[in-house]
Amino acid sequence: MAGPVQSIERAAAILRLLAGGPRRLGLGEVAASLGLAKGTAHGILRTLQHVDFVEQDAATGKYQLGAALLHLGTSYLDVNELRSRSLNWADALAARSGEAVRLGTPLEGRVLVVHHVFRPDDSFQTLDVGALLPLHASSLGKVLLAFGTATAEPDRAPGLEAYTRHTLADPERLARALAAVREAGWAAEIQEMTMGEAGIAAPIRGHGGLVVGAIGLSGPVERICDGQGRPRPALISLLREAARAISRDLGAARW
Amino acid sequence: MAGPVQSIERAAAILRLLAGGPRRLGLGEVAASLGLAKGTAHGILRTLQHVDFVEQDAATGKYQLGAALLHLGTSYLDVNELRSRSLNWADALAARSGEAVRLGTPLEGRVLVVHHVFRPDDSFQTLDVGALLPLHASSLGKVLLAFGTATAEPDRAPGLEAYTRHTLADPERLARALAAVREAGWAAEIQEMTMGEAGIAAPIRGHGGLVVGAIGLSGPVERICDGQGRPRPALISLLREAARAISRDLGAARW
Repeated sequence: MAGPVQSIERAAAILRLLAGGPRRLGLGEVAASLGLAKGTAHGILRTLQHVDFVEQDAATGKYQLGAALLHLGTSYLDVNELRSRSLNWADALAARSGEAVRLGTPLEGRVLVVHHVFRPDDSFQTLDVGALLPLHASSLGKVLLAFGTATAEPDRAPGLEAYTRHTLADPERLARALAAVREAGWAAEIQEMTMGEAGIAAPIRGHGGLVVGAIGLSGPVERICDGQGRPRPALISLLREAARAISRDLGAARW
Repeated sequence: MAGPVQSIERAAAILRLLAGGPRRLGLGEVAASLGLAKGTAHGILRTLQHVDFVEQDAATGKYQLGAALLHLGTSYLDVNELRSRSLNWADALAARSGEAVRLGTPLEGRVLVVHHVFRPDDSFQTLDVGALLPLHASSLGKVLLAFGTATAEPDRAPGLEAYTRHTLADPERLARALAAVREAGWAAEIQEMTMGEAGIAAPIRGHGGLVVGAIGLSGPVERICDGQGRPRPALISLLREAARAISRDLGAARW
């Protein structure tokens, strides 16, 4: 059985590098970042450009991600069963709770947001679909960690970053929190990634009962939490009902 | 100078194939569709799976697109200058016109929708970002064709498909229509892709004055067109003002 195809792995690494920051990168920067010879990097970049995965800026000659990736990314959403089975339930949850709903799945030591229903008011909100959230500092991520769906990738994740003074950046405190999540069946994140923001999340189980994703409510801390700073019980109930309904649709034997 | 890297081109072809339909594909189907030996296709698929560009269904062993593509696709949107310069103008255009706004850029003989502002009412609408529209049967596409920004790719596009009886499927009629678009500075599409739907679009010029994309209004034909079945002049004015404003922001010398 043949090993992985090196040039494809390198191409993927270049795309990841270009996705990692808002800047365009020059050939030298790409080659140096990945430890490739310039000629090797150039051959891969030219091929990626040829298939529209990369674009070259005419003025500077620098590289950025290409348009074909957008079509592939949205096509992924179309075939994602977790997402398609959740659409109606997520809409209903946002309507009933009055809060924003997000759906997450693990990707390379982080949470990938695969669906986002805005809070049903006219406030300015930006679409989080495609964003990557930290596992230990998001309620969606805590659920995925607690139920073993995601694991932090030690070579990619540089420890537990402290985003605020509330972040569970200590591995022992995080482990205790995850045990409590398994016990309770849902997770909270209160100002652990951004001050003033909070979220709660519950596991979605797939065929066979394994946790395949998480669904959560998030927003300003005063909306998600009560006067004692605890997540509002009514929101938790609505959230868990939605998670159970989606799990049932996905064929989970128990939910 | 080295030629394109064959394995990367093949990997891209597999991803395109998987994006082409709603179904998962088995190894044999992938290999046969692309004329590859099964062993070759398997090596590429396993590598794509390893970098999360492809997922394998546990139950059937079939392949589908992977989660990493979603993050790459939305990262492309973040670096797309046409889109970022257009966001505020597109919002304003939707608010002023009361209609849905879409922004298109050429991709492989079609129009890639890179931004979509819903019609500002509470009707049910689905996000078109990432969708590919036909060049000859969409107002965005006609603009891109008329100004030479896009060309139909003869090896990919099987002639001019007739979606409705109004589609300009005859090359000579299409050529005359495109000449009229160049003359008028905007394009219309009235029930040429879907009965009951219509759209108008105008070119966006970039630095140097070349047309780099198109912006359009679309919706039910009775909203876009007047009693005589012609696009409403007030909508055309609002659209062209927005297109000029974005072109100015992009550094076009004339707009």
